[in-house]
Amino acid sequence: MLMEETSEPHGQEQTKKSETVVHIGNDPVMQSAVDVLSTIGNTKKVIIRSKGNSIPNAVAVANIITEKMLKGNSKVEKITLDTDAAAGIGRMTSTIEIILIKC
Amino acid sequence: MLMEETSEPHGQEQTKKSETVVHIGNDPVMQSAVDVLSTIGNTKKVIIRSKGNSIPNAVAVANIITEKMLKGNSKVEKITLDTDAAAGIGRMTSTIEIILIKC
Repeated sequence: MLMEETSEPHGQEQTKKSETVVHIGNDPVMQSAVDVLSTIGNTKKVIIRSKGNSIPNAVAVANIITEKMLKGNSKVEKITLDTDAAAGIGRMTSTIEIILIKC
Repeated sequence: MLMEETSEPHGQEQTKKSETVVHIGNDPVMQSAVDVLSTIGNTKKVIIRSKGNSIPNAVAVANIITEKMLKGNSKVEKITLDTDAAAGIGRMTSTIEIILIKC
């Protein structure tokens, strides 16, 4: 357990603790879905984060994974909505966090 | 109880069963939020539905209600993601359903 915690990171992701965060932006949905698929294959648990107008992309990716690519073998564990408030100004940006697990 | 079930609907919403569905489209976010606010005042429970590119609006409305207008008095009970597949063609539309309750 302790050995794993102190081992060197080999992948290209920063957070490597059996769960990995994937940020979804304006890339093509299928490309993001393949990214998430390859990540979930390694870590069993992926956190998909997205904000603002990219939120539908994150929802689409989650649906593609759970209903097409890994149908029956994966599910949405938890969904969290939040708001980022830019300092000073009154503008707010919505964020979404979808936790997918592979059964 | 039975009396209430058979009483005439007085509001302008179709589904009047102590929970009400509000569809969020491309209207200004604050206007939708006020709609939801007035609905949740009557029914204690509101289901916010949205699809495609309007999903960030639904998330923003949910955040405005729970973090500004009814801060401390309301919370997100459940969030469901789903996909609408248009018949025949391969095109899919993501949908979101956010259930808000007033404590």
